[in-house]
Amino acid sequence: MRQAFTEDFLSTCAKLTDEALAKRLPAPEQQPGRLHEAMRYSVLGGGKRIRPALAMAAASAAGGEPGHALVPACSLELIHAYSLIHDDLPAMDDDDLRRGRPTTHIRFDQATAILAGDALQALAFEWLAGDSSLPAVTRLAMVQQLAAASGSAGMVGGQAIDLGAVGRELSLEELEQMHRRKTGALIEASVRLGVLSVPAAAGERSGQDSLGHYARAIGLAFQVQDDLLDIEGDTSVIGKRQGSDAARSKPTYPALMGVDGARAYLATLLEQCQDNLSGFGPEADALRGMAEFVVSRRY
Amino acid sequence: MRQAFTEDFLSTCAKLTDEALAKRLPAPEQQPGRLHEAMRYSVLGGGKRIRPALAMAAASAAGGEPGHALVPACSLELIHAYSLIHDDLPAMDDDDLRRGRPTTHIRFDQATAILAGDALQALAFEWLAGDSSLPAVTRLAMVQQLAAASGSAGMVGGQAIDLGAVGRELSLEELEQMHRRKTGALIEASVRLGVLSVPAAAGERSGQDSLGHYARAIGLAFQVQDDLLDIEGDTSVIGKRQGSDAARSKPTYPALMGVDGARAYLATLLEQCQDNLSGFGPEADALRGMAEFVVSRRY
Repeated sequence: MRQAFTEDFLSTCAKLTDEALAKRLPAPEQQPGRLHEAMRYSVLGGGKRIRPALAMAAASAAGGEPGHALVPACSLELIHAYSLIHDDLPAMDDDDLRRGRPTTHIRFDQATAILAGDALQALAFEWLAGDSSLPAVTRLAMVQQLAAASGSAGMVGGQAIDLGAVGRELSLEELEQMHRRKTGALIEASVRLGVLSVPAAAGERSGQDSLGHYARAIGLAFQVQDDLLDIEGDTSVIGKRQGSDAARSKPTYPALMGVDGARAYLATLLEQCQDNLSGFGPEADALRGMAEFVVSRRY
Repeated sequence: MRQAFTEDFLSTCAKLTDEALAKRLPAPEQQPGRLHEAMRYSVLGGGKRIRPALAMAAASAAGGEPGHALVPACSLELIHAYSLIHDDLPAMDDDDLRRGRPTTHIRFDQATAILAGDALQALAFEWLAGDSSLPAVTRLAMVQQLAAASGSAGMVGGQAIDLGAVGRELSLEELEQMHRRKTGALIEASVRLGVLSVPAAAGERSGQDSLGHYARAIGLAFQVQDDLLDIEGDTSVIGKRQGSDAARSKPTYPALMGVDGARAYLATLLEQCQDNLSGFGPEADALRGMAEFVVSRRY
């Protein structure tokens, strides 16, 4: 029953986010048209919108409405989209397929892909700073947290560690360190921005620590499941080449723990997520469902 | 006499900025070390710090101290540095020399260069949002203006128009449109952020319009002189390959107006800069000197 609820929740969040993104992203009719086309192509390419859904679920858990987190949700998705564009570049992961479609540098060209990513990052902060429905101090805290989660201490730093690790063995600790930054930092920021977006909760700290622990656990769970899907998944379902991580001898959880070990670890992380929500009532059901969704998704 | 004053002012601003940047940028000892090295290499590579100096000169003109604009000045420089790293990439301008040293992707590698640029952009907004010496509303306005000046309606958009224009003729109007964004937007933002950084001036509008006109004129002047230097300069002085724009048939002012025409246009722009400062007293001397410096610099 919670599965149906979660699926509804996810599709509602995705619809809200997609509409807002489509409306707010610069139109291709505006100069420079090709750049704007590339930005829209990358962002509106039908992602799962897990970060927006997490932000909206966290807003609910903090006593607000999912819609409170709409602008932060869109900013999170812009950051996520820009990171995918840059990660797919030939100098980085060199992927030609993403969400079942040609990657941005294949559909357009490398220069346009680099610039589209750069412009999306700037736009994320412009939107967040300009969200007049939120108090100034809240917006500032969000800009700081999103920037910290995106930069060298967060997502970009994780990607740098990942690239430096290709072809060499990492310890489990190093692997977690890498993933905490690469995927975990932005997932964690999604939950935190969602909590901040609720007017009453913005000032107080109640429940934020456990939501932070929840966020870290779900960030890792997301990556463990990603690694498992890379081995087990089907290219036509996951939308990128299956086995592409293994082919580059990238360090992954299954490579380090075996497939069964990685599955057991995933179960532990799900438990950590739910334990951290034990102090919450039904207002945290969406977060509970999101954790289940993340560990069981097939794409 | 103003030349000596301007040179002093520039070197004071550069020193303040360099010290703050060196202190605040993540240390190479922090993980990921190579990424942090690349960030420091690109930012601390001895640029002219014209944007910081403009921000500080604008703070003076608005009745404050140069130091009021220190954090915005550093953020502007991070954005400028990231744009140079990405512009130099093989998929973009493909330059191997910058400020007389190997470009970041040559000294490190392309992936590290892409990531260093991405992390520097995030850091610029993190610093700006976290500058507790400024009121929250001021910081928010700065984040919005810097983001708008950096994104697809500003710097990145100008670069996209530039890349799309290689090998085809642009009209003078299109060329100005491109440069207003590519160089002008960030130069203009430098002046605006400097004005905003002064506590008393942050709320009022007096003199800001003329400073905005000044900013747009100096932004164009900067680019016209850049184009002239590309033709006339010496690689060892300008620090990048002389004639590299012409070799790529990039549209330039001298190509469109002839060298003499471009020089005459430069003189007109300088006049516009000074006219817009006519309502100011000695507090705008640094801005006056910066305009003279920009049109007469040899590098």
